[in-house]
Amino acid sequence: MTSEELFQNIRKKTSFLCVGLDTDFNKIPRALLDTEYPVYEFNKRIIDATEDLVVAYKPNLAFYETLGAAGWMSLEMTINYIRKNFPDIFLIADAKRGDIGNTSKMYANAFFRSLDFDAVTLSPYMGRDSIQPYLSFANKWSVILGLTSNAGSEDFQQLRISGDEFLYEKVLRAAKEWGTIDNTMFVVGATRADHMRSVRKIVPEHFLLVPGIGAQGGSLEEVFSDGSNNRCGLLVNVSRSIIYADGTNRFEITARQRAIEYRDQMEALLIKAKLI
Amino acid sequence: MTSEELFQNIRKKTSFLCVGLDTDFNKIPRALLDTEYPVYEFNKRIIDATEDLVVAYKPNLAFYETLGAAGWMSLEMTINYIRKNFPDIFLIADAKRGDIGNTSKMYANAFFRSLDFDAVTLSPYMGRDSIQPYLSFANKWSVILGLTSNAGSEDFQQLRISGDEFLYEKVLRAAKEWGTIDNTMFVVGATRADHMRSVRKIVPEHFLLVPGIGAQGGSLEEVFSDGSNNRCGLLVNVSRSIIYADGTNRFEITARQRAIEYRDQMEALLIKAKLI
Repeated sequence: MTSEELFQNIRKKTSFLCVGLDTDFNKIPRALLDTEYPVYEFNKRIIDATEDLVVAYKPNLAFYETLGAAGWMSLEMTINYIRKNFPDIFLIADAKRGDIGNTSKMYANAFFRSLDFDAVTLSPYMGRDSIQPYLSFANKWSVILGLTSNAGSEDFQQLRISGDEFLYEKVLRAAKEWGTIDNTMFVVGATRADHMRSVRKIVPEHFLLVPGIGAQGGSLEEVFSDGSNNRCGLLVNVSRSIIYADGTNRFEITARQRAIEYRDQMEALLIKAKLI
Repeated sequence: MTSEELFQNIRKKTSFLCVGLDTDFNKIPRALLDTEYPVYEFNKRIIDATEDLVVAYKPNLAFYETLGAAGWMSLEMTINYIRKNFPDIFLIADAKRGDIGNTSKMYANAFFRSLDFDAVTLSPYMGRDSIQPYLSFANKWSVILGLTSNAGSEDFQQLRISGDEFLYEKVLRAAKEWGTIDNTMFVVGATRADHMRSVRKIVPEHFLLVPGIGAQGGSLEEVFSDGSNNRCGLLVNVSRSIIYADGTNRFEITARQRAIEYRDQMEALLIKAKLI
């Protein structure tokens, strides 16, 4: 998928919502626990209830790996289900990998070939040759950590480096040269909306993947106001406050209601910005 | 395992060798491809041929994930085989994870509970709260990336930050306060032996996990001379130049010969330093 195709999907759905499939086995309603792959069954019901309201899903690998081979099966089944039924959905593996070149090639193969993800989140700490193998896959995306939404982002990402810029700014400035706006996005947390303007000075055209809305407290209006560009340029991720909004076996109905609320807010913002 | 127990294992085996199980399906001899879990069968033969010469094994997660659920099964079987037969081996998951707290907790559970690893490699980019969940597991280790062995380590790790230190030095200085010498190690690449002395000024007592010997060209003598401490303080990892030394179905015999060569060099260094 190109950035233009992603923008057209946003226009079609009047939404730039990404739902994080951080599916925790311990939070799944009991009724599902008798099935062979409860995590997959949970995901399937969330997907069926929200697919018309979102442009992307983002399974978080940790939640599948903690279940071992069965977890990996659930992930694979989830991806295949989306690919088969909803081919225009953008699929992000939230994996935050980063390793030497020959290892990155293996991870890229895992996420882009063994599993048919469109994108994978990556940590920049090991530098260019740790990212390059992912960028060599046609029509696949690297989503590189810039400024994350957790408190620990202050420890290193917000250190001043020589030339009086923050480390995360240096990361954006360097990494935007490695790929293009059609294969590179950056993670920028919504809880740091004050940093969003400086991010946009460095990468005005790139899509940003924005966590931190919902359970983590960021404001959608502020993110859009400071972070959108003339093709929207944002995928806003919400996980827990949609998929765990309701712990009963009616969870997908409540999840849909929450997703509609986000979609409606996003639609209003897109209309106001004359993007739809 | 404590750092003292690890040192005693090093003394007993006169070796501080870690063998990286970066087992590439495409490099496995044909004779093994008829078995149900070729990667596990390969690992088993490498392990049986080298277990008396090494103190640690380090499976690289990418090589298993690229095979999907079957790869995860091979990993699980490998770990269980080592645990059952060679209980004093230190087991490192080379995963380079790093995410927000609730996700880190899931990864920690994946590597320390679902799989019984002793340690996991972690990326520091997201800061303290991305590492803390791993440190809360008793008798388990966080192996935090400091200065890696690839060319890309120059991109960010070797940037000067305020106070005229490198980013990787700041990472070491901060991260050593998060845990203890009994639950924290650092990755420091052997290809940067000139940096080893500055690392030792910051973390004199910690164990270091050192990649970059062998296929990547680092010198064992230099690493030991600049990086060892009074309890050795080093785990030197070798992957490809041991496990792929011989592409035929005699691969484990050649792997053992290579491991003996490394052990002999290490023994000589430990004797010279009066550590055995």
